[in-house]
Amino acid sequence: MAFEKVKRSENYSEWYNNLVKNADMAEHADVKGCMVIKPYGYAIWEKMQAQLDKMFKKTGHVNAYFPLLIPKSFFEKEEKNAEGFAKECAVVTHYRLKVDENRKIVVDEDAKLEEELIIRPTSEAIIWNTYKGWIQSYRDLPILINQWANVMRWEMRTRLFLRTSEFLWQEGHTAHSTSDEAIAETKQMLDVYAEFAEKFLAVPVIRGVKTENERFAGAVETYCIEGLMQDGKALQMGTSHFLGQNFAKAFDVKFQSKEGKLEHVWATSWGVSTRLIGALIMAHSDDEGLVLPPSLAPIQVVIVPIYRSDEERQKVEAAAEQIKLKLEDLDLSVKFDNRDTYKPGYKFAEWELKGVPVRIAIGPRDIENGTVELARRDTKEKSVTSIDGIDLHIKNLLNEIQSAIYERAKLFRDQSIHTVNSWDEFKEVLETKGGFISAHWDGTGETEEKIKELTKATIRCIPLDNIEEEGKCVLTGNPSKQRVLFAKAY
Amino acid sequence: MAFEKVKRSENYSEWYNNLVKNADMAEHADVKGCMVIKPYGYAIWEKMQAQLDKMFKKTGHVNAYFPLLIPKSFFEKEEKNAEGFAKECAVVTHYRLKVDENRKIVVDEDAKLEEELIIRPTSEAIIWNTYKGWIQSYRDLPILINQWANVMRWEMRTRLFLRTSEFLWQEGHTAHSTSDEAIAETKQMLDVYAEFAEKFLAVPVIRGVKTENERFAGAVETYCIEGLMQDGKALQMGTSHFLGQNFAKAFDVKFQSKEGKLEHVWATSWGVSTRLIGALIMAHSDDEGLVLPPSLAPIQVVIVPIYRSDEERQKVEAAAEQIKLKLEDLDLSVKFDNRDTYKPGYKFAEWELKGVPVRIAIGPRDIENGTVELARRDTKEKSVTSIDGIDLHIKNLLNEIQSAIYERAKLFRDQSIHTVNSWDEFKEVLETKGGFISAHWDGTGETEEKIKELTKATIRCIPLDNIEEEGKCVLTGNPSKQRVLFAKAY
Repeated sequence: MAFEKVKRSENYSEWYNNLVKNADMAEHADVKGCMVIKPYGYAIWEKMQAQLDKMFKKTGHVNAYFPLLIPKSFFEKEEKNAEGFAKECAVVTHYRLKVDENRKIVVDEDAKLEEELIIRPTSEAIIWNTYKGWIQSYRDLPILINQWANVMRWEMRTRLFLRTSEFLWQEGHTAHSTSDEAIAETKQMLDVYAEFAEKFLAVPVIRGVKTENERFAGAVETYCIEGLMQDGKALQMGTSHFLGQNFAKAFDVKFQSKEGKLEHVWATSWGVSTRLIGALIMAHSDDEGLVLPPSLAPIQVVIVPIYRSDEERQKVEAAAEQIKLKLEDLDLSVKFDNRDTYKPGYKFAEWELKGVPVRIAIGPRDIENGTVELARRDTKEKSVTSIDGIDLHIKNLLNEIQSAIYERAKLFRDQSIHTVNSWDEFKEVLETKGGFISAHWDGTGETEEKIKELTKATIRCIPLDNIEEEGKCVLTGNPSKQRVLFAKAY
Repeated sequence: MAFEKVKRSENYSEWYNNLVKNADMAEHADVKGCMVIKPYGYAIWEKMQAQLDKMFKKTGHVNAYFPLLIPKSFFEKEEKNAEGFAKECAVVTHYRLKVDENRKIVVDEDAKLEEELIIRPTSEAIIWNTYKGWIQSYRDLPILINQWANVMRWEMRTRLFLRTSEFLWQEGHTAHSTSDEAIAETKQMLDVYAEFAEKFLAVPVIRGVKTENERFAGAVETYCIEGLMQDGKALQMGTSHFLGQNFAKAFDVKFQSKEGKLEHVWATSWGVSTRLIGALIMAHSDDEGLVLPPSLAPIQVVIVPIYRSDEERQKVEAAAEQIKLKLEDLDLSVKFDNRDTYKPGYKFAEWELKGVPVRIAIGPRDIENGTVELARRDTKEKSVTSIDGIDLHIKNLLNEIQSAIYERAKLFRDQSIHTVNSWDEFKEVLETKGGFISAHWDGTGETEEKIKELTKATIRCIPLDNIEEEGKCVLTGNPSKQRVLFAKAY
């Protein structure tokens, strides 16, 4: 393949950028901070969407669509939310262009909006403004709505999938009559995200709570799942927020309870984005290219024919087509790569680059023997398998690969959680090993900020299953009740 | 049901607005010109998307995603396209807000963009700017890409689903090495749209070509499907454009042909939008509410239990649950409405309003007889059916309803195509009967414009299967080679 190969060990960041580009996943658009998601990358997103959508519906949610643009006056109603996002908002000020006397297209200054509109960085404001009209009584609750949408957060330093000005996501926005019910919803959706990350992305995650500094602007509590990438940096993969009554109060959304009292509504919101494609790439891929978990791979099996003469070609193609049909009967997605413009070696490298989990090579000799050669993308192991029963064999193999990818990532993650007890140890482990550092912290935002300044490490989360343990803050020596997880993060 | 009932015959426009609101389909947002698509309306859109996406993929297309924002300098490259959309463009001029000294959120004037960004009204410009980097040789062609996205065209007079500033759509953008191949693609996608409209929306459509006046800005030829609503107005339901080399020339996109020559690439684009939900409503619904074709109904069958005592309730609910499971085994979507807060009569009216194609009512007497009462939404016919074999019976009934709705719409449409031969007849038929008027036209834009000024009727299309016929223009008396279809339109 004609592309720059940089090893992960040499320059992880360049390796990632090259991989995204060479595997045809995405590219930077000629629009500052934005990306084009190419068909191969988008196909992975479609698979993610289909699975998540199924999980959302199974937990009682329905989809809807709210406007892209938010009047500034709505946006500023929930003060913390507004302040949190103000610095990254794209602003629409005019609603018309015109052709000027030089036949140039210019902004029509006569079409200035009375009130500026913000492109949604997140939709709480416009949605709670709408819910106000939908909620009068406890009978109108809960509202369990999800939206698939594009959002915009102006970014100066971007990285494909991980941080771009526009990205695609889903945002759930639910309304409840009690605090308990809203908290249960928040936790339920965190569990849905964790299950999706582990079973489908094959990325083990830590479920936790964010500190106040890292909390979503406008939330009472932010729950998160945190994954670990191969360079030892953490990645926030999804968040689920308990919003308390903050938005209900900001937008004056009240309901009459069963007892006839007027109360403010309780809220949650939760989201995951195309950033998960970045997580998928960074958690599993290697120096040869993508390693995709079978459950999200757009192509699960590729068949490459090997032949010299036209006569051989006919025989091999007939056998390949039959295998393809058998596999498709088991709902596997199969690509038969019968391009005659490329040699088998080139095709092998291309499909390795694109992370197809299983490759079948089939030639005239194989047909005589009633076998094919299988190659696993994750371990690069090759084996010879009988064509008879190949469909079930491959189905099982794909399951095995899915588990193996997860187990490998989990082993790496588990080995990358380091318990430290002093500031020197903290700094040394962070610089030499990376990964998660489990350390005592005195619970103050100042200390958290100081550690960030000194080391770039942030508190990723306070794990949900944390053990209460008396100790001393790793920086200040002040008393601490529990360890928290620090890491450098994307 | 507690809502304003206006009959179609009294005020069609008010009937439509009430219906969209009362059936929980959509509402006007507090953002000028924008709408909120509510869960019941969105569920219909999801069904449309799933079916269209399947048809696009079957014809070789893949999905991708391009940026929401288009730099003004790209936008103006294809001159006609730019001039055509300039007057409806929302313009982003700043990328940051700030909190001012009074703790108010204001636009940060230090964050003014050097070049304004346009919210996409359609994506040809940004996509062809991107294709330039993807296309070097004939081997890179064709590119067959579709995008599901939101777009923005500033509208002063809006109507839910039919005309809003922001709407959801899909836009296909393909690139080809020959003119013939691009024209074939344009026609193929028109056929896909026509098939979707007739088989799924159950709306008969006329396939035709637009006149130059009505052509998409930047296209060489615009093909369209035109449907007829119950008030005799036409609705453009989808368009497929042959763009020639216009965008390739504007963005300098060339490829090396097999013969080694550098040539400009040929293009098409095609789209349908959430407007189709409006078509669905206006083509079939009646004074009681929505009439949804079974293939797009979010709920195909509703079961309403009828009981007096708790004991009866238990029996009836058990039987209803069994019927539900049987129907779900045939992949039907079924709602068992066991709310105890409403009476059967209220439920009947609610599901009629929401257009559920088949209603099952089941009470203790029915169970004794081994039967249930079925009601068809489209004809309001009721019948008694044996519980035994009810699953297949209902599956067939749904197919019958799908056909019946289509046939009814087709009969109405066919009866609403009027051939006229004089200007007086033209005006009289238009005012008294409405519908499509088949008349001779001299082929000039001036005459077309004049007729529009005089009557509000526009040329909807020149039908593809038109018969060549010498005649005289209905307005000017000048010679004409064929009849075209006029109508008032949404």
